[in-house]
Amino acid sequence: MIKNLKTELLDEKFNALEAGNAPGQEVRQDLSLLDHLMKGDKIDGYPVDFSHGDVDAFPPTPDSESYWLKGFKQGGSQAYTEYRGAFNIRTTLAKDLSLFTKKPILADKELILTPGTQGALFLALGATVATGTKVAVVEPDYFANRKLVKFFGGIVVPIALHYLQSSSKNGLDLNQLEIAFKNGTKVLVFSTPNNPTGLVYSKEVIDKIAVLANNYKVTVIVDQLYSRMLYSGEEFTHLRSCKVQLENLITIMGPSKTESLSGYRLGAAFGTASIIDRMERLQAIVSLRASGYNQAVFKTWFNEPKGWLEDRIIKHEAIRDDLLKVFRDANLQTATPQAGSYLFPKLPALSVDLNTFVRLLRYQANVIVTPASEFAPHLNDSIRLNFSQDHKAAIEAAKRIVKMVKIYAL
Amino acid sequence: MIKNLKTELLDEKFNALEAGNAPGQEVRQDLSLLDHLMKGDKIDGYPVDFSHGDVDAFPPTPDSESYWLKGFKQGGSQAYTEYRGAFNIRTTLAKDLSLFTKKPILADKELILTPGTQGALFLALGATVATGTKVAVVEPDYFANRKLVKFFGGIVVPIALHYLQSSSKNGLDLNQLEIAFKNGTKVLVFSTPNNPTGLVYSKEVIDKIAVLANNYKVTVIVDQLYSRMLYSGEEFTHLRSCKVQLENLITIMGPSKTESLSGYRLGAAFGTASIIDRMERLQAIVSLRASGYNQAVFKTWFNEPKGWLEDRIIKHEAIRDDLLKVFRDANLQTATPQAGSYLFPKLPALSVDLNTFVRLLRYQANVIVTPASEFAPHLNDSIRLNFSQDHKAAIEAAKRIVKMVKIYAL
Repeated sequence: MIKNLKTELLDEKFNALEAGNAPGQEVRQDLSLLDHLMKGDKIDGYPVDFSHGDVDAFPPTPDSESYWLKGFKQGGSQAYTEYRGAFNIRTTLAKDLSLFTKKPILADKELILTPGTQGALFLALGATVATGTKVAVVEPDYFANRKLVKFFGGIVVPIALHYLQSSSKNGLDLNQLEIAFKNGTKVLVFSTPNNPTGLVYSKEVIDKIAVLANNYKVTVIVDQLYSRMLYSGEEFTHLRSCKVQLENLITIMGPSKTESLSGYRLGAAFGTASIIDRMERLQAIVSLRASGYNQAVFKTWFNEPKGWLEDRIIKHEAIRDDLLKVFRDANLQTATPQAGSYLFPKLPALSVDLNTFVRLLRYQANVIVTPASEFAPHLNDSIRLNFSQDHKAAIEAAKRIVKMVKIYAL
Repeated sequence: MIKNLKTELLDEKFNALEAGNAPGQEVRQDLSLLDHLMKGDKIDGYPVDFSHGDVDAFPPTPDSESYWLKGFKQGGSQAYTEYRGAFNIRTTLAKDLSLFTKKPILADKELILTPGTQGALFLALGATVATGTKVAVVEPDYFANRKLVKFFGGIVVPIALHYLQSSSKNGLDLNQLEIAFKNGTKVLVFSTPNNPTGLVYSKEVIDKIAVLANNYKVTVIVDQLYSRMLYSGEEFTHLRSCKVQLENLITIMGPSKTESLSGYRLGAAFGTASIIDRMERLQAIVSLRASGYNQAVFKTWFNEPKGWLEDRIIKHEAIRDDLLKVFRDANLQTATPQAGSYLFPKLPALSVDLNTFVRLLRYQANVIVTPASEFAPHLNDSIRLNFSQDHKAAIEAAKRIVKMVKIYAL
């Protein structure tokens, strides 16, 4: 009996990790059954995979491979670093991240380098969530957040995100958050800029989160992966530099998105030293360290050629604006991304379920997107696009999405 | 009350992950308090870090950086692979690993690429151990095994390793193993060649493990990281090619050691498809994938220049033989490593505890080794050396160890 119970526990745990519709895994799907569901003909066009950024359209930071090669040539001392990462690299990064987030970071105690920001998120939640820990998870938000909480035995307390109406009160629902904190929620994890909507939490909302977390002694993990790609007229507020200083706060960033360095798997987490310590202990059994040679590529971060970042932002903003026009002209309600390269158009009621529509999009129209249900389990009316793509191909693909919506609309 | 209980759970979990004496972390230790414990003067000599192989003395497989660069230049398709790794690389590796381990591997279903073998071990235990699962862990064995079991909430069932007397019955204690299986142990994890002793499990013992695991329906995870560096006259038996075929078996290998590719963080796990599936789901939230560009370096594996591997083995065997002579001449009992580059000399009773002796070794004699307690919690009479080092420096450092043992022997 006990044995069966354990097997069931494990089955349940891994059912919660189901990844068949996760971004990047589409290639493993069997599409052969879609023919009888398809309405009309295939719609030709250059294939676009909106599930992640196209690093061929927006290539990695210039010379990243030279930095890598220097690391490789350095040999043993770069291959084997402390689990939390090479000290000289942490020293430089701590300065850059301090400047960017407007609060000092101690290189030796308050920073860890990880295999991607995914690695950082895993370690941060692993270090703070035990069986039964209640964790506030925003919906919609990065698809792995709730999976991580469940994997560590925590209880997901969903908090709604307001994102469709443009307002300074946009962001997570503060009333729901306070109720959750009152009811014993001990950890909050969220992303700003939000994935999948591109919403940047306002100073007003960030300040209130800080006050609430402080009052209720909640640990906060904030994923700011996209905070460098901020569009014109927008402001970004770093939770860590708020007037109210949180005792337990981890900020996560990395050069995988804006900088297109995802192929290196590099991430960074910084904040409360005791949590960073635990994250390092966990990293020691998870993956030892971010690949030693790859760590050398961190030296390109916040050190890009003059004007490079600005140019990249301008180009993404132009794609954003053209995509918004395509979707809004077709009456698909879409929030304006304030940062990052995610767009989250809302679809009308369809004659097929969302997962089927997404598969049809791939099969019939050569467009890969990610269904909303990956970001909020009960949300089935939107799709996420990572628009870090070839400009022209992205617009053409968006027009095919609109065509497909018209075909399958009820 | 419930809150405190959870905090304690987490505290306990992370105390079990204490990594202050773990290989590679020595640099974080404060040695300033050792002066008053030190007997005699500092012993000069070229510093040797036996905690891991010296990839400057034994450099990575020739041209690994060219393979890496080809991967980088391939762009997006190499940066973003399936979570389980690029299919073309898995296809080639599946063939090579099938040949090596003498049993076919399906590239699509039975193989996953991971960030190092540490990553593979983490995923394999995460996929098979739930709260309360009893897991047979060999002592001494790789230091992370028992930490992983505890982290996933499993119960460690220790199994003794016989390694000091040379015998075909060397290997884990089969009686203890059967008792453990009878008492509900559902997973066995072990390494062959054994880390830290260099023992290769005999065909006789491997066959019996297969029979027992089959009888009691136990899942086996076997870490064969060092199986390619096999010394003259030795034979290696792959559990996966035994006559008795296990339903649940994962074999772990990687090019980090013999091939000195540790700086790339590459590992591979192969075996039961349903476990590989779970490992991929877990990888999706742990680190997404092994670094895309680094995966390209797998193409050097089992594809080294002719004679390269043989030469590397000959050189290591020569160091092994010289080290054994140094330690045995000083009456330090040391098993003969049959494969790999670990040596595990037994020390006499000392006037300081083992951790202090290891710190003194570093402070007084410029030699870093790993204490036995990292491999078996109650073992405090041995030290582990990774002798993949500059030959002359290693022998000189071993002589300093012998001097230090004489100074601190009771």
